[in-house]
Amino acid sequence: MQETAGDSTTSGMEFFFNPRSIAIIGASADPAKLGGRPLAALRKKGFEGDIYPVNPRYTTIDGLPCFASIGDIPGSVDLAVISVPREGIINSLRQCAAKNVRAAVIFTAGFAETGEEGLSVQHEIAAIAKESEMRILGPNCIGFIHFENAVMASFSDVMELDIERDGRGSLSFITQSGSYGERTFIKAYQEGIGGGAFISVGNEADLEFSDFITYLASDATTSIMGLYLEGARDGAKFRAAAEAALRAGKPILVKKVGKSGAGTRAAASHTGSLAGVDRMYDSFFRQMGIIRFEELRDLANFALAHHSGRIPRGRNVAILTDSGGPGVEMADRCEEFGLCVPELGTVTRNRIEKVLPFYGSARNPVDMTAAVMSDQGLYSACLQAIYDDDDIDIVFAPGFFMAYTDRSLLDDMLDIYHSSHKPLVMFPLWEDGSPQALEMIARVKNEGIPLISEAGDAAWTMAALARYGERRQRFLEGDTSGCF
Amino acid sequence: MQETAGDSTTSGMEFFFNPRSIAIIGASADPAKLGGRPLAALRKKGFEGDIYPVNPRYTTIDGLPCFASIGDIPGSVDLAVISVPREGIINSLRQCAAKNVRAAVIFTAGFAETGEEGLSVQHEIAAIAKESEMRILGPNCIGFIHFENAVMASFSDVMELDIERDGRGSLSFITQSGSYGERTFIKAYQEGIGGGAFISVGNEADLEFSDFITYLASDATTSIMGLYLEGARDGAKFRAAAEAALRAGKPILVKKVGKSGAGTRAAASHTGSLAGVDRMYDSFFRQMGIIRFEELRDLANFALAHHSGRIPRGRNVAILTDSGGPGVEMADRCEEFGLCVPELGTVTRNRIEKVLPFYGSARNPVDMTAAVMSDQGLYSACLQAIYDDDDIDIVFAPGFFMAYTDRSLLDDMLDIYHSSHKPLVMFPLWEDGSPQALEMIARVKNEGIPLISEAGDAAWTMAALARYGERRQRFLEGDTSGCF
Repeated sequence: MQETAGDSTTSGMEFFFNPRSIAIIGASADPAKLGGRPLAALRKKGFEGDIYPVNPRYTTIDGLPCFASIGDIPGSVDLAVISVPREGIINSLRQCAAKNVRAAVIFTAGFAETGEEGLSVQHEIAAIAKESEMRILGPNCIGFIHFENAVMASFSDVMELDIERDGRGSLSFITQSGSYGERTFIKAYQEGIGGGAFISVGNEADLEFSDFITYLASDATTSIMGLYLEGARDGAKFRAAAEAALRAGKPILVKKVGKSGAGTRAAASHTGSLAGVDRMYDSFFRQMGIIRFEELRDLANFALAHHSGRIPRGRNVAILTDSGGPGVEMADRCEEFGLCVPELGTVTRNRIEKVLPFYGSARNPVDMTAAVMSDQGLYSACLQAIYDDDDIDIVFAPGFFMAYTDRSLLDDMLDIYHSSHKPLVMFPLWEDGSPQALEMIARVKNEGIPLISEAGDAAWTMAALARYGERRQRFLEGDTSGCF
Repeated sequence: MQETAGDSTTSGMEFFFNPRSIAIIGASADPAKLGGRPLAALRKKGFEGDIYPVNPRYTTIDGLPCFASIGDIPGSVDLAVISVPREGIINSLRQCAAKNVRAAVIFTAGFAETGEEGLSVQHEIAAIAKESEMRILGPNCIGFIHFENAVMASFSDVMELDIERDGRGSLSFITQSGSYGERTFIKAYQEGIGGGAFISVGNEADLEFSDFITYLASDATTSIMGLYLEGARDGAKFRAAAEAALRAGKPILVKKVGKSGAGTRAAASHTGSLAGVDRMYDSFFRQMGIIRFEELRDLANFALAHHSGRIPRGRNVAILTDSGGPGVEMADRCEEFGLCVPELGTVTRNRIEKVLPFYGSARNPVDMTAAVMSDQGLYSACLQAIYDDDDIDIVFAPGFFMAYTDRSLLDDMLDIYHSSHKPLVMFPLWEDGSPQALEMIARVKNEGIPLISEAGDAAWTMAALARYGERRQRFLEGDTSGCF
């Protein structure tokens, strides 16, 4: 298990991420039940600490001794996972506090989100956390997962994912909606993105999403963070957390809902948060280099591009294409998302014009025309000229992955890519599903080069990465004015 | 072959769509060459008329007699496909005119898009068309395909598609960029959308994209049209074409590029069109019920939703969901794209509250909560209540396609769907890849119900369909004021 250190604002949180022992209160022998799922997952994923099922109705579960109450556990308990009916929550928490449990996750629903009565019990939960210095996640959440340390304190299907420790990128997701978080995390996994932690914060009676951002800024298995946000209660804490992430070079991508009247109303009845004035959030996100995304695919595309390790130095894009239409479209979308598509300088244009057919264009987009299909040296010559141009920060180039494509085309392309640090996105893919095509695509993916087929997605991704790079740079240079 | 009737503005165009004979000038025995591809495709796809290869270097090609020049062909020629070098184009066209050919497609590039000299030859092409009353498509295009009649006057990979005659929806695509058109058409095909015609208009020396819109408004195999547009030269013709399509109930979806400075510059060097003032186009599109799309997926989603035959009567959406977050997100996106998500009326709310757990919500979004997983009657009861509510025009509902899902859930859902004409979109899909899940998904698709996994895509699609329905209704009622 790896060492991760909390700081003063996140004290006690290491007991979530790196517990020596976990008790499951309301444990079940049925792995389909809420109290059975974490137990089954902890064992399957090989959690290395002690596991203590707690339930007066069993003496053993799956070969482990089962305790009637948490007080009966012989050893110390770092983390308690609590899945008992609403009526028993306060009692369970008091027993945890008496046992000196350091961290607790509460699955149970029916608190602030259901009205006044639930809210008052939730205040009691917060008070117990404060008195006992036990940190609490939830209630009304689907729990917490840390893949590297096999902490499976959840009942989510996310635990089933076979996260590779060397996955491409490593996303941690913090969510005020369990369901949205699950879909997003699973989708990202399907796109080949590795996982650090998954945290459903529920009603945030004690710990808020910001606490987890701050902690994960120093988690070695997290390279970017995703956040589903309905509302932030503590702006100053959010700012401090965002700064910690910015300093650590771990971008935060946020899905902020509650923009619309109906969305705000629905958010209020969901987790009881006030979605607040959406523009205020937008401005805060811009200041803090937080990237607001709309679709699940945006998060996945950003994670892959960020994982390449190539943050654009500026916003100037060169577009290399095999035909006019897609080039025009890409140029449009780049400018729409705030990138620039300048005409190429004379030196670069001359180099390109020397190899292009007369009906091509070297202006940017560079249109190689269908001539590239019969003259594969054309591609390398154009790509090299673009890579050599110091005024160009980002390159968009088409992928030709066909049964008839010469393999040396890809060799040459990768040589040029490796000789530089400029980010590259490959777009519209000509691919015919042939074994050679699939092999070439796998090779490009293994190199960490993002393959994005829709022009708008490609432009959004590189624009977001460029903006992130700019804001982080200014922040590191000490510009914390908030006016980026 | 089916009968399609041209009108006065599209005179002679039936010879493209329904020719009795096709000559290929510059025919090749090599099916990889531009002059070889249409010949091979016409035979493979079973074109029922006469096929005449023309090339002085052969006496036969693939068992067909090959003629030295078009004048040597014994029968009459309706359509000529011309693939000869630039220098030979004018001569070939004059020979076609002398032979009384009615329609010609010119693949050859190097005209207006390359400068003054090319432009003057292009004017000569237009003059020949006018004098001879032969209609000309191109030059600088990848040709023309009509699937039903097996007219393969192209060298595009689109000819390879195995278009089913009873495909879902039937898209015809008209494009000022061959390459963009190919990608879009192939993507739509992969999404299960049938095909009417594919037309690459190239430099539009004679026929413009508008001529094809007008013609296709009465083509029986076209149910919607896609258009890639850099610029329109004749606004009045475009308006008349758009009106014909609106009257026929065939939506036009346009990808208009040249919004940005770089895009406009690139479009100018691509087909020589002036992209013009983008906002003027936007306003025109809105007036004419033309839907502007950005991504390829938008076109596919719209085609599928339109094919359901359910055009929304209004913009009021009910959202049914199994958890808060996705419901909030969907509500946001619906309002963002111009739909409304009203609170449900008392009668409907009472019906829903009777079956919901206390921690659910009947306000809209209707949050059934995870309770729906164990109480499948809940889904049907909520869906029926929403369908019965006359204030609701559009329904968004989640799909549960899992190995453990009771099949009767889908039966009940489809019964409710069939008892009404309200459009339905199914969204975020819970599906586990099991045989049962795949079977359920196939069944939903066969019913023509759009399955769209990203909230933004689903909201965009239904908003576009609702706007189209409104504008068409007003147009049919005689409101042609242009102020929709």
